[in-house]
Amino acid sequence: MTKRIAILGSTGSIGQSALAVVDAHPDQLQVVGLAAGENADLLAEQIARYQPRLVALASGGAIDRLRQIGVAAGIAGTGRDGLVAVASHPDVDIVLCASSGTDGLEAVLAAIAHRKTIALANKEVLVMAGGLVTDAARRYGVSLLPVDSEHNAVHQCLHGRQRSEIRRLILTASGGPFRGRSASELTGVTAADALRHPTWRMGRKITIDSATLMNKGLEVIEAHWLFGVRGDQIDVLVHPQSVVHSLVELTDGSVIAQLGVTDMRLPIQYAFSYPDRWGAPLPSLDLARAGPLDFSVPDRVAFPCIGLAYRALAATRSLPVVLNAANEVAVGLFLEGRIGFGTIPGLIEQAMDAHVPAEVTTLAAVRAVDQWARDYALELARGVESRV
Amino acid sequence: MTKRIAILGSTGSIGQSALAVVDAHPDQLQVVGLAAGENADLLAEQIARYQPRLVALASGGAIDRLRQIGVAAGIAGTGRDGLVAVASHPDVDIVLCASSGTDGLEAVLAAIAHRKTIALANKEVLVMAGGLVTDAARRYGVSLLPVDSEHNAVHQCLHGRQRSEIRRLILTASGGPFRGRSASELTGVTAADALRHPTWRMGRKITIDSATLMNKGLEVIEAHWLFGVRGDQIDVLVHPQSVVHSLVELTDGSVIAQLGVTDMRLPIQYAFSYPDRWGAPLPSLDLARAGPLDFSVPDRVAFPCIGLAYRALAATRSLPVVLNAANEVAVGLFLEGRIGFGTIPGLIEQAMDAHVPAEVTTLAAVRAVDQWARDYALELARGVESRV
Repeated sequence: MTKRIAILGSTGSIGQSALAVVDAHPDQLQVVGLAAGENADLLAEQIARYQPRLVALASGGAIDRLRQIGVAAGIAGTGRDGLVAVASHPDVDIVLCASSGTDGLEAVLAAIAHRKTIALANKEVLVMAGGLVTDAARRYGVSLLPVDSEHNAVHQCLHGRQRSEIRRLILTASGGPFRGRSASELTGVTAADALRHPTWRMGRKITIDSATLMNKGLEVIEAHWLFGVRGDQIDVLVHPQSVVHSLVELTDGSVIAQLGVTDMRLPIQYAFSYPDRWGAPLPSLDLARAGPLDFSVPDRVAFPCIGLAYRALAATRSLPVVLNAANEVAVGLFLEGRIGFGTIPGLIEQAMDAHVPAEVTTLAAVRAVDQWARDYALELARGVESRV
Repeated sequence: MTKRIAILGSTGSIGQSALAVVDAHPDQLQVVGLAAGENADLLAEQIARYQPRLVALASGGAIDRLRQIGVAAGIAGTGRDGLVAVASHPDVDIVLCASSGTDGLEAVLAAIAHRKTIALANKEVLVMAGGLVTDAARRYGVSLLPVDSEHNAVHQCLHGRQRSEIRRLILTASGGPFRGRSASELTGVTAADALRHPTWRMGRKITIDSATLMNKGLEVIEAHWLFGVRGDQIDVLVHPQSVVHSLVELTDGSVIAQLGVTDMRLPIQYAFSYPDRWGAPLPSLDLARAGPLDFSVPDRVAFPCIGLAYRALAATRSLPVVLNAANEVAVGLFLEGRIGFGTIPGLIEQAMDAHVPAEVTTLAAVRAVDQWARDYALELARGVESRV
């Protein structure tokens, strides 16, 4: 049976990999919806090729550009409304949420309410609103299939097992481009330095998160929500080769790991094909050539973001929302060259310190905390800039 | 519910580890039957502690010694008949076959016919009679749970998956005590050298098999029967740290691995507890301290036994019986100092060359080929000795 998919973030790195998976499995997958940000030209090419029923873009300007090019697809709208419309289209079976940042949250909740299977490549959604999303998924009987390579690995390791068999999750981290550097060696690094990731090719936001190790911190929080384990059951190990994508220690001490080549088509296809597994036109992992596999404990002094994430997870309630929002602001400012690399964790920590944690049981409450944290972080950053 | 077990080979290395598992889970496990070889004194201690209903020893002399000590257990008999009686006792739920060599074959078939779950630590049984044993297990609806750490790892990796998802199995090998040596550097090695295994503490026969890599060859054949994959779907990688116990490559290229500390209590407990999983009082695997994990292709020139096993598996029919029998003879002679290390593969190969493969669909046919190969290998060895 053909699975009908919607891709939120189709012009990004994950979106393009997802369309490559569609190319490899034209009989099993059909593209029904596509949503992108500002890249109307690439979306127009994708529309010509995949002929979706419905598309969306982030802004009116981008929509105008798309109309100018002339396309044969319904246009859903802009911003979060556009994402929601694409994600809830009645013909869609699976929604791949690969939009950057937190814009996908409403769309994911809408897709769940319409009983779509969710393939989740966007970790911010769970960091912000893990309780809301997982509660809704449970209520509607919807599967949340992680596309992030680490969580996809954990999902594969846990397949067929009980949650009660889990003793510990071990998420691996490449360590990013600055692995091995001390805090003082990190002060002068630029956005260009940080964007050179050693093993994975990804979008700009996630590449910076990877350099600060915040990416791993967000993944710890994501793993908590996806697999129902406490923060103290989730460890992080730096593994520069990125061959072992993550591991699960079971109650008897046995450890199950998932390994593979570093190609996002694999976890995306896994989510699309689940519970089946399709062939893939990728070379096999050659362990004998992959070189020795190293594992080490991350340096939490040089990379404080990971500790901030554990702190936010331990507090739960609204603190992860603050962590995530302040991080998005800080990364944006760093990419614009407005703050230094070493300022990112400090900005986040100050926002967390200033916040009074509260329960966040509605989307409105989440968005309110999110907005407060963004405003507060921007305000702090202006202070930093004025001192520069 | 308490599982009632019989242990064939209770005084050996695996048998003692199995009793340690019983010690750790006294409410879940009860020892009903024990069978040992010649070590009547240790069996007497085990009888006093675990109070089995039925015991067996290999010889009349050993039984006499046991009677002399005075024990409160029924004595089933000697040799293969004794093993069969212990394995088929009506109160037994699970039979752990950990007797050395091929003596356990009749007992395993008898246990299957009595619908006992089989925990198989003895690879020779499947190498000799894989078709007979797996056919019988299918017919009687009996589970064959591998205790060998590699196959146990594969079993864990495949849990919950379809056989059709398997692209390739990768069995890891420590490489044994002679890893990295060339063929010419291996000519002078002694049994004492070979018995110093770097990572696993095991019995003498399997330790020599580990030094020649025949152990891995036998495991390739065992894996064929356990998991229904062809020889060309089974690879071997040398992995000196013995942390990754084996891996399975699935159809999409994703690789699932099982890792753990090198302690046979883990796979034994897995087989006893399956499909549940119990806690274990063992330290967790510490990957950050396990050191870099290396993988390399085995040297088939210095270690020809592995190639002989692939050749026997490709021919199937009776050739694996010859491989196994000639190997048992050759290892025995090497342990007695009667032939050199380098002579082991040559002896096996000559026996294989001299054999005319035939179908072996009965136990009698298997035993006939086995006897022929033993006689032939001994005859060859006499020739070698006379030339020394």
